[in-house]
Amino acid sequence: MSTVIINGTVVTATETFRADVRIDGGKISAVGLNLAGSGDTIIDAVGKYVLPGGVDVHTHLSMPSFGTFTCDDYASGHLAAVMGGTTTHIDFCIQPKGSSLADALKTWHAKAEGKALIDYGFHVAITDLTPEVLQEIATLPEQGVTSIKLFMAYKDTLQVDDTTLFRCLEQARDAGMITMVHAENGDAIEILMQEAVERGQTTPIYHALTRPPQLEAEATGRAVAMAEVLDAPLYVVHITCKEALDRVKDARAKGARVWGETCTHYLFFTKSDLERGEFEGAKWVCSPPLRELEDQAALWAGLADQSLSVLSTDHCPFTFATQKMVGRDNFTLIPNGVPGIEERMMMLHGAGVGGGHFDLERFVSLTATAPARLFGLGGVKGSIAVGYDADIVLWDMTQEHTFTADTNHSAIDYTLYEGMKVTGVPVLALIRGEVVTEHGQLKAQHGSGQFLARARVG
Amino acid sequence: MSTVIINGTVVTATETFRADVRIDGGKISAVGLNLAGSGDTIIDAVGKYVLPGGVDVHTHLSMPSFGTFTCDDYASGHLAAVMGGTTTHIDFCIQPKGSSLADALKTWHAKAEGKALIDYGFHVAITDLTPEVLQEIATLPEQGVTSIKLFMAYKDTLQVDDTTLFRCLEQARDAGMITMVHAENGDAIEILMQEAVERGQTTPIYHALTRPPQLEAEATGRAVAMAEVLDAPLYVVHITCKEALDRVKDARAKGARVWGETCTHYLFFTKSDLERGEFEGAKWVCSPPLRELEDQAALWAGLADQSLSVLSTDHCPFTFATQKMVGRDNFTLIPNGVPGIEERMMMLHGAGVGGGHFDLERFVSLTATAPARLFGLGGVKGSIAVGYDADIVLWDMTQEHTFTADTNHSAIDYTLYEGMKVTGVPVLALIRGEVVTEHGQLKAQHGSGQFLARARVG
Amino acid sequence: MSTVIINGTVVTATETFRADVRIDGGKISAVGLNLAGSGDTIIDAVGKYVLPGGVDVHTHLSMPSFGTFTCDDYASGHLAAVMGGTTTHIDFCIQPKGSSLADALKTWHAKAEGKALIDYGFHVAITDLTPEVLQEIATLPEQGVTSIKLFMAYKDTLQVDDTTLFRCLEQARDAGMITMVHAENGDAIEILMQEAVERGQTTPIYHALTRPPQLEAEATGRAVAMAEVLDAPLYVVHITCKEALDRVKDARAKGARVWGETCTHYLFFTKSDLERGEFEGAKWVCSPPLRELEDQAALWAGLADQSLSVLSTDHCPFTFATQKMVGRDNFTLIPNGVPGIEERMMMLHGAGVGGGHFDLERFVSLTATAPARLFGLGGVKGSIAVGYDADIVLWDMTQEHTFTADTNHSAIDYTLYEGMKVTGVPVLALIRGEVVTEHGQLKAQHGSGQFLARARVG
Amino acid sequence: MSTVIINGTVVTATETFRADVRIDGGKISAVGLNLAGSGDTIIDAVGKYVLPGGVDVHTHLSMPSFGTFTCDDYASGHLAAVMGGTTTHIDFCIQPKGSSLADALKTWHAKAEGKALIDYGFHVAITDLTPEVLQEIATLPEQGVTSIKLFMAYKDTLQVDDTTLFRCLEQARDAGMITMVHAENGDAIEILMQEAVERGQTTPIYHALTRPPQLEAEATGRAVAMAEVLDAPLYVVHITCKEALDRVKDARAKGARVWGETCTHYLFFTKSDLERGEFEGAKWVCSPPLRELEDQAALWAGLADQSLSVLSTDHCPFTFATQKMVGRDNFTLIPNGVPGIEERMMMLHGAGVGGGHFDLERFVSLTATAPARLFGLGGVKGSIAVGYDADIVLWDMTQEHTFTADTNHSAIDYTLYEGMKVTGVPVLALIRGEVVTEHGQLKAQHGSGQFLARARVG
Repeated sequence: MSTVIINGTVVTATETFRADVRIDGGKISAVGLNLAGSGDTIIDAVGKYVLPGGVDVHTHLSMPSFGTFTCDDYASGHLAAVMGGTTTHIDFCIQPKGSSLADALKTWHAKAEGKALIDYGFHVAITDLTPEVLQEIATLPEQGVTSIKLFMAYKDTLQVDDTTLFRCLEQARDAGMITMVHAENGDAIEILMQEAVERGQTTPIYHALTRPPQLEAEATGRAVAMAEVLDAPLYVVHITCKEALDRVKDARAKGARVWGETCTHYLFFTKSDLERGEFEGAKWVCSPPLRELEDQAALWAGLADQSLSVLSTDHCPFTFATQKMVGRDNFTLIPNGVPGIEERMMMLHGAGVGGGHFDLERFVSLTATAPARLFGLGGVKGSIAVGYDADIVLWDMTQEHTFTADTNHSAIDYTLYEGMKVTGVPVLALIRGEVVTEHGQLKAQHGSGQFLARARVG
Repeated sequence: MSTVIINGTVVTATETFRADVRIDGGKISAVGLNLAGSGDTIIDAVGKYVLPGGVDVHTHLSMPSFGTFTCDDYASGHLAAVMGGTTTHIDFCIQPKGSSLADALKTWHAKAEGKALIDYGFHVAITDLTPEVLQEIATLPEQGVTSIKLFMAYKDTLQVDDTTLFRCLEQARDAGMITMVHAENGDAIEILMQEAVERGQTTPIYHALTRPPQLEAEATGRAVAMAEVLDAPLYVVHITCKEALDRVKDARAKGARVWGETCTHYLFFTKSDLERGEFEGAKWVCSPPLRELEDQAALWAGLADQSLSVLSTDHCPFTFATQKMVGRDNFTLIPNGVPGIEERMMMLHGAGVGGGHFDLERFVSLTATAPARLFGLGGVKGSIAVGYDADIVLWDMTQEHTFTADTNHSAIDYTLYEGMKVTGVPVLALIRGEVVTEHGQLKAQHGSGQFLARARVG
Repeated sequence: MSTVIINGTVVTATETFRADVRIDGGKISAVGLNLAGSGDTIIDAVGKYVLPGGVDVHTHLSMPSFGTFTCDDYASGHLAAVMGGTTTHIDFCIQPKGSSLADALKTWHAKAEGKALIDYGFHVAITDLTPEVLQEIATLPEQGVTSIKLFMAYKDTLQVDDTTLFRCLEQARDAGMITMVHAENGDAIEILMQEAVERGQTTPIYHALTRPPQLEAEATGRAVAMAEVLDAPLYVVHITCKEALDRVKDARAKGARVWGETCTHYLFFTKSDLERGEFEGAKWVCSPPLRELEDQAALWAGLADQSLSVLSTDHCPFTFATQKMVGRDNFTLIPNGVPGIEERMMMLHGAGVGGGHFDLERFVSLTATAPARLFGLGGVKGSIAVGYDADIVLWDMTQEHTFTADTNHSAIDYTLYEGMKVTGVPVLALIRGEVVTEHGQLKAQHGSGQFLARARVG
Repeated sequence: MSTVIINGTVVTATETFRADVRIDGGKISAVGLNLAGSGDTIIDAVGKYVLPGGVDVHTHLSMPSFGTFTCDDYASGHLAAVMGGTTTHIDFCIQPKGSSLADALKTWHAKAEGKALIDYGFHVAITDLTPEVLQEIATLPEQGVTSIKLFMAYKDTLQVDDTTLFRCLEQARDAGMITMVHAENGDAIEILMQEAVERGQTTPIYHALTRPPQLEAEATGRAVAMAEVLDAPLYVVHITCKEALDRVKDARAKGARVWGETCTHYLFFTKSDLERGEFEGAKWVCSPPLRELEDQAALWAGLADQSLSVLSTDHCPFTFATQKMVGRDNFTLIPNGVPGIEERMMMLHGAGVGGGHFDLERFVSLTATAPARLFGLGGVKGSIAVGYDADIVLWDMTQEHTFTADTNHSAIDYTLYEGMKVTGVPVLALIRGEVVTEHGQLKAQHGSGQFLARARVG
């Protein structure tokens, strides 16, 4: 009646050791030597590494944006995720202006209905802080949502003002929630964009040039200052540059409850990718934009020295052929976002562990343990430990994989990592003890993924 | 027909030397040895130091604020200034909402009419940036105004949003003007103030506690980031704390055109002065608020190492007996501002030069040469050099002075420096070659002060 | 034949969960639910936390210093350690000048012989780098020693010059070893001490005043710079002040292989403790000296934000009544060092976890998992995981303990923490599966502790 | 009997104005309008700028080094200096080991005898601090020497240890002197050089690669820390990189009496110049070595924001054809040093003022006023002010000049700036009122330059 993974090498955020893993009722019941008994279902992991399934806390599936929707829904997005070794994600539920948060959550629950392959939770992005909504924040934890998100950019659509940000940080703190921010100064960016367009500067590179790093560092510093003043927990998403990272570090050095993530693409690409010809640069249009090589170096060091806690994807896919193409003559119309939900773990493993930036335990921490703990999934997701959900991925660290849009599982028509080869591939994934993928084959049914009610945090 | 100051020791921002100073037509015509001729009016400066008259670029005379007006008009304010060795100031002309800048300037010109004793200019504080006002900015230099001011605090009254700040920085840059900012996050402060009052925390100390240094550093960083992005000149007024100063220094180290000032009171008082009993703390209520001893140390070092360029007063006087008293039961009603126009130079000399923080030349730079140069008065005000206006103050560096409200010349009923004794006193002041004060006696007529049309800057 | 700890709550550096722990052959063979079988030896941990035994990587037992020996030998020192929850330590083996490293190790092995209660390893401190000794470094790993230590202070006794430091860093790097430094500028300190004594400044406070933090930060920066240039692994011991910590952080932010520790006493005491009357301040004389409250705050934040990796003791005990008393009339003769091997874990738990600085998992990391990993004991010590030595301590987090010299187990006649009360006490300790202490009673024989041959690191 | 410079535009460190300059007895007696009288010698400066002659506080003429002597003596070196607009320099008098400082000064006085064209002073570089020499330091001011220099690099020749550095800083402080340091870690560099040579890495680029910036920043931090601890004045010569500059800034921000200079070549060249073919890179071999473009940017910003106080040359010329050639097969034998005494002012003016980094006043401060003041020549050299020596240079800011070894005046056979064109040329130089050069023609006799006994400083 049990499932036992035998002969593998288990990796947690701090240990690597040979052990079997026993699973009962979807949860890990033991980690030890010689656990297989007669009657057990055996998964032989000989020569493989047994890692916790990835936790991606920054995704946008079926999200309305730029007059369209991100091109992955919970079916295709989840398939891509789990093929890449990710078994849990937390998606952004965006409050439509005028709507209650409860209604927004209802809409997002419906998106997942019948499609989910992996387990999922929601962050609620607040865009319209009426007095009613301010009160409603405190009700979110009982609905399983313990994080909110605020945009300091995207003027006139998602952007909130400082009054809203400050009040939300305070309210979230009191409710046992963590506040996430997209930190860029949207007012200044809006003007720079308008001016660029007026000057006829309409190609994708101007997306980066109108969102300079100072405006990210500034907004990061602003959110951090508010968090310090309020002693409120804060999570800065998609940090891209040295200066913004420095703001997070300074706050942490003063004992503030502040954490930061970066995303896969900021480690592998730079501003210059936006200059690729034939409008191809549009594929790399995301916000904040790609930066410089020295910023990449600072981010890698930050992942290693633990000043960055999490590596997520900000998976926000728009097709090149149709969706990105809308901005052909005007970069401000290019939907902002890049795909990456499938590549995250393999790319980080290949370049991060393979490249000597950090060890396998740190890889596990960045991709699974830390994000789970920070967002109220400690004890449930993100580790190979007794009592945790048996979300387990077997990795073959000798196998190679070359990324290409053709074989990727997202609904999108390109990958940023086209033709890049990595060593280390997830070959089997279990969620709550059930095999979901095996050697690239889907073994589970859409709808098997479950909503995660997360614990209070901070 | 000439006036010659003989036997004195001349001090400029970089030199100290024995020389006579000849004055013709209100301007310095020569600095040299044995300049006195027959028929000249002789001023014997034996044993005295001959310094350029002080330039105070941050004052608020007859300014409407908190439902009242600052208690010094151009008569009493100028008298206090010149008794303290200051012969030029630049006052803030505040745009009333809905008004044009030209109308605001007209109002301010009228305030000075017939009252001025010292020369004066105006910064225009923009509070309502309509498209018309945005266009109007470029017309200011031809009206002799080459600096604008924006408030990032004082929600719902003076505060502007980031769109306004960014546009103004850009417009001012293009017009050859410098932008000044009051850097505090007004949104967050407003909430903190409301919450304090709701909790019954109504005494003056809560003025400081609801305006924590992080919110000043944040706003400073925000303005600096915008200035960097735009390559626009920026002047951060009244820097009070180490963290805000660091933002200015970081920008300067990257080559940005950013400068900072601090004000006299931040060097001598701390937050704890707000806790003085019998509501006396209200006398020290100003924004940003007083900070800590370590901030004082950072400011002194900044004045010495030239990361702070200017020492000004932010003279903004409200009487204790009536005006400050309005906030007896609610600190948010206490008019924000402290006096200091008379004490600035003597206090800075006594503690700065006397205390070994810097030399007399640096004192001249901080109080006269640098502010004049930064605000378009280079070649006219702020130095003892040929062709400059003969705004000259003789200092007796052996004379002592004790500050007390009784003998001060401001219309206010208190001084922060009550009972403090300094060594080094201005004993004679000339403006454009005319004696205005001598040994504490006024020698000129109100109305003799002139408006200064300033040159473009940046 | 197995031992099973049942009903406890297991804590690792990243997880806390309910599980039994099975032990076979001195090693952990399984962590899981319901592991107890018939015939097993059962340890009931109901209501207790099951933590890895502490690993203290900075101790000085029976060490010759200041013309005497530290007053704890491997018997009393180990007893104090294990009573405090520490089951492994790495002691400093000091090369006598003129001696080979092998001879020094022989001497240190003899010190442990027949006395050891807990497992132990050695760092070799190099004081005399002859060409032969330089060659000998590469032979240390095969003797189970994979770390060396260099003193940048203690002029004319332990101090090495920069040539030695640089060569050792390089040699150690090539041999798979990590280099530790005591970072203070000994040349400058020696002069300051002489001058103080010449001026008659002989009381304990002058110990701190002649070792200012700048000289620690300087030396830290020097060692870090060398490590960066050589890409050599570096571990900075006993960081005491913000400025030194900043040097470590800056290096880590550039991707250098640099780590830092602080020690218990720097978190709880300040320079002012050296001014305690009746020469009592001498009890707090250690190097680097105690600092200021703001340094304490920086260290606590560093432990939380992971810029400090380890909390160790620098246990270096000298009796007050006789050994410290030698410096009664001259602080430079006071033996440098303080006790703490017994208090470390309880104090850090009480104030760190109890005081809200970090959680229990971080406590485990700082006191066991991280030091074990950094010093070549990963997979063996420092965690509750399959295959690890069963060095396990049961903690009763509700029990209180008050420190007092009378009941402490060290041979020393005082404790810095006299009268301090903490909540959270280790009530049972196993080493390699054997019970060593239970409720304050020793259950094992001296001589049962084993030497640890450590793996290569870096 | 007077000389009067008429019709020019006078520039000081803080003012620019139209005025005549009268000279009597070699000193400036007046600056004013219409100063020319009958019988005066008139110099018409119409269309010209009237600047103080340059003060170069870092030169090495006829200095023994690397088994040879720098190729400019006081005749050729002074000619080159004054042709470039420099009228005062302070040269390094190097104590031979075993010698007294007085004897070293005697040697250096002899070098200047009969050759000097410009005024000169000496810094004494201490290389051998015997107890006698330590005492002798206090006698230097009465010999007109108020600055000492210490080398932290050049192992086994010039390098001193930390004990020497610390004692000298203290002794100099007490004697009213300033201490200068060459800040690089010579111990580490010596090993890196040996290892490079052993690996066959012998070309000039390895000069830079074996002197990495971390080792300069380290040594800078070390000297700065000592200066802070002792409250001793410190001047860090030839700062080349951002990290070293940051150390100086941090100290200044804490109020320390610390100043820094950079040198011309660090602003115009990078490490890559050492890779020029045909051994030409050897021409750029100096210590510290050339760095990166980002370091150049930091230095330019430092010159502008006043964190760097002085721009000097470190003129230390060795001929390419013979002297540099000694290191053809081994970079460690290449004499360290580059020429620049003639180019300094024109290059800094052309690129600094012409390039928009700062204004003409700042140029005057960096090249004349600040170095004179810092080294005890305030009131005598470095400004156009009454009582100052009439060391005056007329600049034609419209004239162009192209540097080439053929027309340069140094005895060296190359210039780093070969073929570079600048706008702004010194066309006439007076020293103490006497014309020394006019339109490139020498008008004075060798021997006319005078030794400068400098005042105490700090």
